[in-house]
Amino acid sequence: MEFKKVVLLGGGVLGTQIALMSAYSGHDTTIWLRSEGSIGRTEPKIEYYTKAILDALEQAKKFVGNPLGAYVYPKALIPDWNNITVEGIDALIAEGKKNMKDNLHLELDVKKALSDADIAIEAMAENIEEKITFYESIKDILDDKTILCTNSSTLLPSTFAEHTGRPEKYMALHFANSIWAHNTAECMGHEGTDPDIYKQVVQFAKDINMVPIEVHKEQPGYVLNSLLVPLLDAGQNLWARGIADPETIDASWRIGTGAPVGPFQMMDVIGLQTVSNVLKMKPDAKDPESVTYRLIEMVGEKIEKGELGVTSGKGFYDYSK
Amino acid sequence: MEFKKVVLLGGGVLGTQIALMSAYSGHDTTIWLRSEGSIGRTEPKIEYYTKAILDALEQAKKFVGNPLGAYVYPKALIPDWNNITVEGIDALIAEGKKNMKDNLHLELDVKKALSDADIAIEAMAENIEEKITFYESIKDILDDKTILCTNSSTLLPSTFAEHTGRPEKYMALHFANSIWAHNTAECMGHEGTDPDIYKQVVQFAKDINMVPIEVHKEQPGYVLNSLLVPLLDAGQNLWARGIADPETIDASWRIGTGAPVGPFQMMDVIGLQTVSNVLKMKPDAKDPESVTYRLIEMVGEKIEKGELGVTSGKGFYDYSK
Repeated sequence: MEFKKVVLLGGGVLGTQIALMSAYSGHDTTIWLRSEGSIGRTEPKIEYYTKAILDALEQAKKFVGNPLGAYVYPKALIPDWNNITVEGIDALIAEGKKNMKDNLHLELDVKKALSDADIAIEAMAENIEEKITFYESIKDILDDKTILCTNSSTLLPSTFAEHTGRPEKYMALHFANSIWAHNTAECMGHEGTDPDIYKQVVQFAKDINMVPIEVHKEQPGYVLNSLLVPLLDAGQNLWARGIADPETIDASWRIGTGAPVGPFQMMDVIGLQTVSNVLKMKPDAKDPESVTYRLIEMVGEKIEKGELGVTSGKGFYDYSK
Repeated sequence: MEFKKVVLLGGGVLGTQIALMSAYSGHDTTIWLRSEGSIGRTEPKIEYYTKAILDALEQAKKFVGNPLGAYVYPKALIPDWNNITVEGIDALIAEGKKNMKDNLHLELDVKKALSDADIAIEAMAENIEEKITFYESIKDILDDKTILCTNSSTLLPSTFAEHTGRPEKYMALHFANSIWAHNTAECMGHEGTDPDIYKQVVQFAKDINMVPIEVHKEQPGYVLNSLLVPLLDAGQNLWARGIADPETIDASWRIGTGAPVGPFQMMDVIGLQTVSNVLKMKPDAKDPESVTYRLIEMVGEKIEKGELGVTSGKGFYDYSK
């Protein structure tokens, strides 16, 4: 199947990035937005991420021919790194710029947005009721052929399948932030997803320069968060129990495994408010004897001081210098 | 305190590597070996790792001046990477070669080996009884000034402190494999370790070009394994439950976090026999309903086929090509 028309339902941080990669890779792409106000919020995001993508290509020119370039080049933007030249990147910049402009459209009318769509990706807030209401509002509008995906990070497709009116054509397709560099697309159906539709979505992921991560059964957190959460938990545990401080824990991880960042550097990117919210959902969060309780206090002290992570300039580390 | 004489008690894989880094960084270093047979096993290791260290320096010359060189240079061998030149590396090769030859001695007589030692690092097999017997055999031989450390990966210093005759001068100092690149030294005392001795050991770690990882309380697995084990467990769990295959799980981790290898690539380095041994020690190992039981079967099938990891040429991946 050829994916001629791609629709993003929602123009948030991820919706915008997915739409740009779809447009970049040559697909006619529409972002549906709920209101005029949403346009005002999405247009600056499009501008910001378009610049980020073009900047990443500019940066990559420095590393053409460098035997270590494969460590750092933007994976989704330069499909054939081994044979790339500076002129080749210039051509990608010119083509990408044109594609991200010409192929990307904003649309307020959901019927117009979805008309003739080959694939529609819902990228809205993580709210079960709102998603159900939305799916029910579009189920009679969707073309018969349209494959419907959700980019939800935390909710399972089986929660929504029956509300879409097309459970066999519905599944999760989950992207990571900084999609041009972290180009995974986690593909996860529910029990009723048609295996042929699953294969087509895997192909679509490849078409927009993603590495498809095939998740064979429903798994909260997909693959990446299923691995990441236990690592972050272990780091938090060492810190809360006074075994070692964040800098030491991160250094041990970086040097011991060759990873570019340790768990506390990752938490600074995730944001300490999110870290705190996740801790508060744990079953022992209210037990004053628990490590979780102590952690909520320790993270809370940082949040109170405005140390929220990378975005606030300080978290476990100081980014203001 | 100046560490003039360093003694390694045991010449296995780690003992040899630690001794070479001590000699490389200018310390008079003795490896005590139990028997003539041990000499026959240790000498080829010294030769092998000496070559590995000099090769790592040769390789590093290619990346002098490369803005990405900091990703790959051997951290313990080139202390000041930012100001290094090719000639500087040639000088390090000449000096390192000389140091690793002139400063390193093998000794069968434990009394001679330990005489006047400033620090002695026990790097013997992970056997509690054998270690206790050994510590008791040397406690009256050790010089009063000698700091005694254990490189044990899995046992806690408190288990042995009273048997050393010098609990206040005894602690763990734990190194990683490929010490010249993964240059962490985890420093962990027991409750009776003198804080001043702890500080001196941290300084010794720096003196032999290690990054000291200060572990403030006894913690099985120190920092690195306390982080690594939950990550490997999570990867194994996804595999055993059929959520995703090893290649997919590794790709998701590499792309999502920027790490050079995923959990199954790490397990291939650790070795599947060790992975299996660790699984068999879990409390639910014999419960046929458990994921652990299934994992022991799945790993066992690979071991039976001789797929033991990197060393056998095949594990989760094929290294023979």
